[in-house]
Amino acid sequence: MTVFHVSEIVDALQGVRQQWRELQRRALEPGGRDLPAREALAEVVETLKGVLFPMRLGPPDLRQESENFYVGHALDAALHALLAQARLELRYKARHAETDHGEIDARALAAVRAFSQRLPVIRGLLDSDVLAAFNGDPAAGSVDEVLLCYPGVLAMIHHRLAHELYRLGLPLLARIISELAHAATGIDIHPGAQIGSAFFIDHGTGVVIGETAIIGERVRVYQAVTLGAKRFPRDAAGNLEKGLPRHPIVEDEVVIYAGATILGRVTLGRGAVIGGNVWLTESVPAGAHITQAISRHEVRAPAHERPGTAAPDAIATGAA
Amino acid sequence: MTVFHVSEIVDALQGVRQQWRELQRRALEPGGRDLPAREALAEVVETLKGVLFPMRLGPPDLRQESENFYVGHALDAALHALLAQARLELRYKARHAETDHGEIDARALAAVRAFSQRLPVIRGLLDSDVLAAFNGDPAAGSVDEVLLCYPGVLAMIHHRLAHELYRLGLPLLARIISELAHAATGIDIHPGAQIGSAFFIDHGTGVVIGETAIIGERVRVYQAVTLGAKRFPRDAAGNLEKGLPRHPIVEDEVVIYAGATILGRVTLGRGAVIGGNVWLTESVPAGAHITQAISRHEVRAPAHERPGTAAPDAIATGAA
Amino acid sequence: MTVFHVSEIVDALQGVRQQWRELQRRALEPGGRDLPAREALAEVVETLKGVLFPMRLGPPDLRQESENFYVGHALDAALHALLAQARLELRYKARHAETDHGEIDARALAAVRAFSQRLPVIRGLLDSDVLAAFNGDPAAGSVDEVLLCYPGVLAMIHHRLAHELYRLGLPLLARIISELAHAATGIDIHPGAQIGSAFFIDHGTGVVIGETAIIGERVRVYQAVTLGAKRFPRDAAGNLEKGLPRHPIVEDEVVIYAGATILGRVTLGRGAVIGGNVWLTESVPAGAHITQAISRHEVRAPAHERPGTAAPDAIATGAA
Amino acid sequence: MTVFHVSEIVDALQGVRQQWRELQRRALEPGGRDLPAREALAEVVETLKGVLFPMRLGPPDLRQESENFYVGHALDAALHALLAQARLELRYKARHAETDHGEIDARALAAVRAFSQRLPVIRGLLDSDVLAAFNGDPAAGSVDEVLLCYPGVLAMIHHRLAHELYRLGLPLLARIISELAHAATGIDIHPGAQIGSAFFIDHGTGVVIGETAIIGERVRVYQAVTLGAKRFPRDAAGNLEKGLPRHPIVEDEVVIYAGATILGRVTLGRGAVIGGNVWLTESVPAGAHITQAISRHEVRAPAHERPGTAAPDAIATGAA
Amino acid sequence: MTVFHVSEIVDALQGVRQQWRELQRRALEPGGRDLPAREALAEVVETLKGVLFPMRLGPPDLRQESENFYVGHALDAALHALLAQARLELRYKARHAETDHGEIDARALAAVRAFSQRLPVIRGLLDSDVLAAFNGDPAAGSVDEVLLCYPGVLAMIHHRLAHELYRLGLPLLARIISELAHAATGIDIHPGAQIGSAFFIDHGTGVVIGETAIIGERVRVYQAVTLGAKRFPRDAAGNLEKGLPRHPIVEDEVVIYAGATILGRVTLGRGAVIGGNVWLTESVPAGAHITQAISRHEVRAPAHERPGTAAPDAIATGAA
Amino acid sequence: MTVFHVSEIVDALQGVRQQWRELQRRALEPGGRDLPAREALAEVVETLKGVLFPMRLGPPDLRQESENFYVGHALDAALHALLAQARLELRYKARHAETDHGEIDARALAAVRAFSQRLPVIRGLLDSDVLAAFNGDPAAGSVDEVLLCYPGVLAMIHHRLAHELYRLGLPLLARIISELAHAATGIDIHPGAQIGSAFFIDHGTGVVIGETAIIGERVRVYQAVTLGAKRFPRDAAGNLEKGLPRHPIVEDEVVIYAGATILGRVTLGRGAVIGGNVWLTESVPAGAHITQAISRHEVRAPAHERPGTAAPDAIATGAA
Repeated sequence: MTVFHVSEIVDALQGVRQQWRELQRRALEPGGRDLPAREALAEVVETLKGVLFPMRLGPPDLRQESENFYVGHALDAALHALLAQARLELRYKARHAETDHGEIDARALAAVRAFSQRLPVIRGLLDSDVLAAFNGDPAAGSVDEVLLCYPGVLAMIHHRLAHELYRLGLPLLARIISELAHAATGIDIHPGAQIGSAFFIDHGTGVVIGETAIIGERVRVYQAVTLGAKRFPRDAAGNLEKGLPRHPIVEDEVVIYAGATILGRVTLGRGAVIGGNVWLTESVPAGAHITQAISRHEVRAPAHERPGTAAPDAIATGAA
Repeated sequence: MTVFHVSEIVDALQGVRQQWRELQRRALEPGGRDLPAREALAEVVETLKGVLFPMRLGPPDLRQESENFYVGHALDAALHALLAQARLELRYKARHAETDHGEIDARALAAVRAFSQRLPVIRGLLDSDVLAAFNGDPAAGSVDEVLLCYPGVLAMIHHRLAHELYRLGLPLLARIISELAHAATGIDIHPGAQIGSAFFIDHGTGVVIGETAIIGERVRVYQAVTLGAKRFPRDAAGNLEKGLPRHPIVEDEVVIYAGATILGRVTLGRGAVIGGNVWLTESVPAGAHITQAISRHEVRAPAHERPGTAAPDAIATGAA
Repeated sequence: MTVFHVSEIVDALQGVRQQWRELQRRALEPGGRDLPAREALAEVVETLKGVLFPMRLGPPDLRQESENFYVGHALDAALHALLAQARLELRYKARHAETDHGEIDARALAAVRAFSQRLPVIRGLLDSDVLAAFNGDPAAGSVDEVLLCYPGVLAMIHHRLAHELYRLGLPLLARIISELAHAATGIDIHPGAQIGSAFFIDHGTGVVIGETAIIGERVRVYQAVTLGAKRFPRDAAGNLEKGLPRHPIVEDEVVIYAGATILGRVTLGRGAVIGGNVWLTESVPAGAHITQAISRHEVRAPAHERPGTAAPDAIATGAA
Repeated sequence: MTVFHVSEIVDALQGVRQQWRELQRRALEPGGRDLPAREALAEVVETLKGVLFPMRLGPPDLRQESENFYVGHALDAALHALLAQARLELRYKARHAETDHGEIDARALAAVRAFSQRLPVIRGLLDSDVLAAFNGDPAAGSVDEVLLCYPGVLAMIHHRLAHELYRLGLPLLARIISELAHAATGIDIHPGAQIGSAFFIDHGTGVVIGETAIIGERVRVYQAVTLGAKRFPRDAAGNLEKGLPRHPIVEDEVVIYAGATILGRVTLGRGAVIGGNVWLTESVPAGAHITQAISRHEVRAPAHERPGTAAPDAIATGAA
Repeated sequence: MTVFHVSEIVDALQGVRQQWRELQRRALEPGGRDLPAREALAEVVETLKGVLFPMRLGPPDLRQESENFYVGHALDAALHALLAQARLELRYKARHAETDHGEIDARALAAVRAFSQRLPVIRGLLDSDVLAAFNGDPAAGSVDEVLLCYPGVLAMIHHRLAHELYRLGLPLLARIISELAHAATGIDIHPGAQIGSAFFIDHGTGVVIGETAIIGERVRVYQAVTLGAKRFPRDAAGNLEKGLPRHPIVEDEVVIYAGATILGRVTLGRGAVIGGNVWLTESVPAGAHITQAISRHEVRAPAHERPGTAAPDAIATGAA
Repeated sequence: MTVFHVSEIVDALQGVRQQWRELQRRALEPGGRDLPAREALAEVVETLKGVLFPMRLGPPDLRQESENFYVGHALDAALHALLAQARLELRYKARHAETDHGEIDARALAAVRAFSQRLPVIRGLLDSDVLAAFNGDPAAGSVDEVLLCYPGVLAMIHHRLAHELYRLGLPLLARIISELAHAATGIDIHPGAQIGSAFFIDHGTGVVIGETAIIGERVRVYQAVTLGAKRFPRDAAGNLEKGLPRHPIVEDEVVIYAGATILGRVTLGRGAVIGGNVWLTESVPAGAHITQAISRHEVRAPAHERPGTAAPDAIATGAA
């Protein structure tokens, strides 16, 4: 007698897969996996971090006098690995079309080549982000500490790489790279978002920045800030309309404190300061300071019981 | 002379452990570890992901024509590994009782067998979740992208597996599996929560769903939504009462936008829409739209200084 | 013909690095990496977890009768590894000074020795945290479950270790250890924060606790609570003033529910209860119960459309 | 100043590589490695061992009731990995020719398909080898011990797989597989050698069996036996003639004891027994017993010194 | 169409396994693997090496002042792992009998306990072996070099551990440990062989020492020496008789040079010296020096050809 | 009750270590390991193989157009790792002397620098070895196959690296590197041996070449050949005299067939051919052909029994 009814479950799972494939109108064709792989992209990004910052994020035994050897070798390896993933994305997208593999591969190569040439610019932008964090946080001890420790900087390394891929027609690779940072930091920046230099996200957990957001230079943002869409228009057929500008424009030198929610295609004018937890669905002029309108709490008479013993009216938001 | 006073510290740590054991009334008995292991469950879940979605989350070199071989082998291995962990949980719970090991092991086997037979249903539910994400997000390029990238889908894979184990009397295994997803996504769903098909969590960081929550079909939830308890009743002896229904009931096709907080055993009626950051402790009728009652901010005169230079009255919520 | 223009990109990247080094006034000197390593500290912390809780977080095959052998061996290894990192931090800080390496190394040794002798106290504090979680959460099945599963406990293990290093003059090591917990739990506690015994963070995602916060005993905190700074004073030269007390003081037995934001050097008196989502920038007397001042929502007429079909006025905060 | 003159050495090494490529008349063309990989083949063979003997050489957690699932999955993976290596060998061989890649790949596929269909026969032959070892060695405790421990059996697993590949036109893959066994056991069997069922090599270190050797059924061989070539004929141009039959034919049930050397295209008749250290360059009739012709030593008067103290005339063969 | 006919091959392989099981009269019963595992024993031996020589073969970061902590922890882990393997061997042996698992496990425990108490004696013997190598080899620079580099010492570590297990009724574990050394060194010592202190094997490749060999103290042996059996007696039924003394007795201070072959239950008297390549099947008195009886070569007239060009009568033993 | 008496055994082992240290007159001083590490050198050699043959033994994803980047990076890493090991050897040797660490480190650096500059020459020599194997073996299909598969080539890569280190005063590192090859191939070449270009070892198992051997150019050697010492002179005090020339000189273009044993400081003249199994302790003129003096076997009447059934007079050398 077998311990588990493995064969029956295997058959049932095959049945569910079959239903899914029919629902998705997919033929059951022999062959291997045709999707980009999260693990492969994670490794590409790890390598590119070392390429961009060899003495700080590269291999621990690297020495300054041989930086260029390392950078060249690692860059070449990372680009070829990225090229393989780019081919997978483009072939996957073209899987229903009569597209020529050679032509797809040429497009993949062109995209990765263009990406590779943007790396020096990306490094420059990231340097400005690191400096912005160092200058904006009284607790920062050095620029190196910022690069090593700050989740906001990690998220921006991923974003600036992902954004290039997004621009170059590889949105799935871009999205995977963004989600790797999201998992590591709790910061969720859509690769489509356009972000100027010297951008600083402090603490970061819960930050969400949408696909069509445009952020200027020297902007500062704290944890749990949302730059979101206000509504999702649908077309006559009831389908979501894609690609419409629907997220905020944030001009240079704006500061947005923790928990603020800015929704829709509004503009925060240059130098505006948005206070913590502010809820905002309209534009704000340059230099404005937006704060909570009213004090939002009520103090009641002291409770004499210990909080641990049956406070009958405590308002809890714990999900316990 | 030794570099560190290791022996003294070892003795002192033994003293603290001894105090703890006395406090917990635990005998110091020889023997190995008697608790389920996070690493082992992580591997079980990784394998089950491949069992459920072989061509997308299984081994990269898998080919469609041998899916069933892989599924059968991986399933058998995962179930036996899960069985070992289930025994540990049940034995641990019975450690103070005079329970027969044979009987405990039989219960573990029955639970894992029942779990295994639910896998096809779980796969079907997860397919509905993937479709819901694809249909609900204008940025989603394909169902495969959704399965590969979306943290909300990852959290639901863990939840739907964990919920079965919770139902089958293995709440500690269930909790570990949920926390694995919490760590990876920032989405904290208690394995006790009952969630219908086609559930979509977008962005997800900060979502908390409590143990007795009941969620219908085709519900959509955004980041930082809490479905929590309002208060924790205690019994006459001052101990927390366990197991009482204390979290919201969310009916079919409800949408809850980011940051909304719903507390207590309230009901959100079918098709209700809860706006962002809403704070809600009472029930809502079907079809209601709940939004912020008032605009919550105050615009003051533009500040002409750069934000980086001593804005004397900026309200910061950064913890820096 | 080469596939990628690797040499050109290598040169361009070298140019950007050169600019950075000039900007930072760093000489290009041969040599290896001079910064502490995140991976090395992650391993130190993993080992110390086993040292503190050998039968629950130590190696799976450990047996109780040989706990002390394991603890002694692992402790010695962890302390030497930590010593190496401490030297790196102190040498890095002194890199512009004419400091003697021997003297720096002696300081590193003294710091790690002092750290090692605090471990029994740390274990005692962590035991109190575990008990607090068990007593404060109706869903907790056992103290062992709490230690294995609760992200709040994981964050406190890291914090209590990091706080000692911070106190002993190793703030960079401390920060890296804190960020390791932040990445794993979404809980961001600055290593400078002083936290009394029996501290319980439930759920935890999005919690931020600032550098100069002081928290008493038996305090309870839920997800997304911020104990932050209200403003960042700058000195005459426009630089941020460092080290000023700028975060809240939380007295014994306070409870702060999810999403509450407490800013500035205010005091929450003993036993105060702060309701969910409260925004607070002033002190609160002992025993006070602070709740939302008003109901914050508006119920409108039921919408008859399916939420999925073009609700023209839904207020969305999703960034999709 | 740099520590090592890395750039100069890099240039010098490039110069030597350039000389080699000129000597070998190889163009310097961009591109990746074009040779089969030892590591990849090692993994293929490891997997095939599990396919052939699932419960004894397969994964430790395999269970008998799901053997077929494992065998199917592992076999499919191993065959595809082998196919990739087969393509590399065939393309490498055709690198100077105008061969079509498609045609080469078809040949690789045909070869691996044919190989795959021989696996049941190979398993049967290996069973006979295991039984031969068990029956021929008084120290063997069980057939399972033989399969787990005996280097001669390991060498035959590799040989029987390698010989099929050799026969199917993949001699380089075959050779790599043979050398993997040679490294592990000290037994060097050329993949071209034809070996009948129930072959037993005891101890094995130093055994060498040449490319054109033909060995019958139920043959037994001990350590350091050579079945070699007597001379290497050269053609008119002075080049070695390849492929000529130049190694012994060993008929059924022959036994060859340790250290015996048999050279040239001689025949050892059925049932012959060749004594230890015999040197043989001519054929032997069926049933013959060949032993040392004479006693080969000379006893001299006892030496009274300890061997450790300057025995002036000891004949040493140590290389110390 | 599938690439390979995997299902057919899976069925055919199942057929061959079925034949084997019938031949071996094994029932097809569900269940996991029931044999000791080579990998597990390799890890046990690696750990025991560190236990025996902590500062030289233990973990690289070990420090002398905490040796005992390491030794205790590693010893406990290794003994429990060994106990698990011992149970497997004893249960396997008893698989056809009606033996009680409890009783078998008690025997396994007794054996491993007895083994553990022999470790200090084993360390002492190995120290004598190391010194013997240092004193016997003019090329040895230090005792530490000997322990780190000499394959003969590695083989003796394995042998002295394996011999204890053999004596304690665990011959299969012993054999696996011996074969691990055989694979690494080319030295094949049966775990049954009894070997006195200060034994030195130089170079070692090809050494074979049989099960019933008895070797005294301060014996030295060079590469390719065989201490073998002369014949294998069979009983009336034609089966090999097991356990008979059939290998040489080598008394104290004997030296045996490279390639010598000593066969049968002969005795080499104290202090005898056996020359290289000697073939010996009879006893030798104490102090005797045995050398080659005659010069074994014939010098012919110089050949004027290059050896690479068709020397028509070269006697080759290469298998090429 | 504990399972094993770990504490007692730990104490007993400490006692044996104490005896050893007293015997060796070593003080018990705190501190870490002071010996070079086999694993570290294994990694250095693996990296240097890639440096020497980047496209064939380097990383599988390397591409020809970025060879130099890889070579530079890998070389720098390998040299620094080797430098660390060189310091360990030199400090270890000087551990009883009053030597200045700075001076020792300078010597280590000088040695590794000199080593690094020999790498191009070593590559050239290895190319000649590869060609010699290809030209000398009728079974060799290509020079690439030779580099990938032939154990003799692997042994020579190790030897040529080790020999440089030996010459530069690092004999312990050299010995470890040689033993790594010995373990992998069964070929034991002392790093002191001087070997000219185009050296070919076929099959190789059992080859032993001693410390003071001198081998010319274009020499060929088969398996189990020994170039050893004839006797070990001792000085007046009875100690082995070290460093005396005691192994053969082999002139250009000599061929030595399998199993031949050449002992002592004899000279094999240019172009000599030594037959298989020849035993030689005197010099041989240029061009001589040395073969077995006599046929060494005796054919007896055929035996009619099966070899498996009690052949009463079979001469076995198996150790079974």
